Amino acid sequence: MDAVKVIEIKKSVYESNDREADRLREELRSKGIFLLNLMSSPGSGKTTTLKATINRMKYTHNIGVMEADIDSDVDAIAIAKETGVKSIQLHTGGMCHLDAGMTRQGLDELIDGKVDFAILENVGNLVCPAEFDTGATKNAMILSVPEGDDKPLKYPLMFSICDVVLINKIDVMPYFDFDLEKCKENIKLRNPQAKVIPICAKTGEGVDEFVKWLEEEIRINKG
Amino acid sequence: MDAVKVIEIKKSVYESNDREADRLREELRSKGIFLLNLMSSPGSGKTTTLKATINRMKYTHNIGVMEADIDSDVDAIAIAKETGVKSIQLHTGGMCHLDAGMTRQGLDELIDGKVDFAILENVGNLVCPAEFDTGATKNAMILSVPEGDDKPLKYPLMFSICDVVLINKIDVMPYFDFDLEKCKENIKLRNPQAKVIPICAKTGEGVDEFVKWLEEEIRINKG
Repeated sequence: MDAVKVIEIKKSVYESNDREADRLREELRSKGIFLLNLMSSPGSGKTTTLKATINRMKYTHNIGVMEADIDSDVDAIAIAKETGVKSIQLHTGGMCHLDAGMTRQGLDELIDGKVDFAILENVGNLVCPAEFDTGATKNAMILSVPEGDDKPLKYPLMFSICDVVLINKIDVMPYFDFDLEKCKENIKLRNPQAKVIPICAKTGEGVDEFVKWLEEEIRINKG
Repeated sequence: MDAVKVIEIKKSVYESNDREADRLREELRSKGIFLLNLMSSPGSGKTTTLKATINRMKYTHNIGVMEADIDSDVDAIAIAKETGVKSIQLHTGGMCHLDAGMTRQGLDELIDGKVDFAILENVGNLVCPAEFDTGATKNAMILSVPEGDDKPLKYPLMFSICDVVLINKIDVMPYFDFDLEKCKENIKLRNPQAKVIPICAKTGEGVDEFVKWLEEEIRINKG
């Protein structure tokens, strides 16, 4: 299986993204659908983290994944191949983020009456995706160890809007100047409420804690 | 020394960024000034690469550095402290890139009749900075090993506009699934002309080759 559906996303027509995002979030909630928006820099391990997470949750949830990229469909293919869940590729046509209207275009293809846990892997970018509410139930981000513990100081908005921050690639910590405690302090400066979970998506370390957090949030969303 | 000048950059007033960029590039050339625009994802090692490069070139050039970030001044302080060259911090006020007008605002503070090699460390972002010509003489980018060898497929524009691609953090190659030859092929797909230099900014490996490339480009710019 080498083919996944590729959607060419168009610019949104909505005047107020915030209003459209709130509307989408409420619509999803009323249908019992949880939407996770996962953001990070390029190469922080979004797809690997999703594969590890989905393989732990796919037996108890109907999962669907939207992989947003400017180009290529390698991530959607990887998700489909290695987890077996429904996966589509969203092409943003050069755009550096997704807003609520664009997310809706993807959901229209993804939601088929079965999917109750939808995941959006946003474009790899620590700046712009933070500025646009996608309508997701919860926002998650990954900061990987090689990027450095100072990133919350340099990219404040991204850290301030995320409900959970995964610190990935902790297996390579010995090879980098990365101070986990300092990083947690820097995150706290930007967002005292954020849940911080150190993980290694490749070995699976810490992923169970992320799954536990997700299960609880899904339960709350169902009300 | 813990204080560096911080410039709050304003939105540009120019209608055509491309025209303004060409004008700035020509102005700099006529004054014998070489401007390097260095781009990458957050945490790829731009500042560490600059420190290693500047410490090799500062005795033969008058170097000035502009550190662009949404917030914080840690990079400008690091450059000033560890190289001794003139360094200023540009705050973009949330903006995800610099255009030619914004670059000019920084240069107005940086250029003092002495600086003949100006460096712009752009905002950490593989998407938006590629869309705006800053007026730089040459564009350089860093892709670090932990980000993965597939990045040229996902962020085509950035790779296509750069004159040189530094592949950084090659010292940790054994701990990541990174195929250097495949990466070079992926870069070639996007930009057959790009010079590719594997480096380790931390140990200095490969930095001499980057310096050699810069020296030649500076020579050509002087005409």
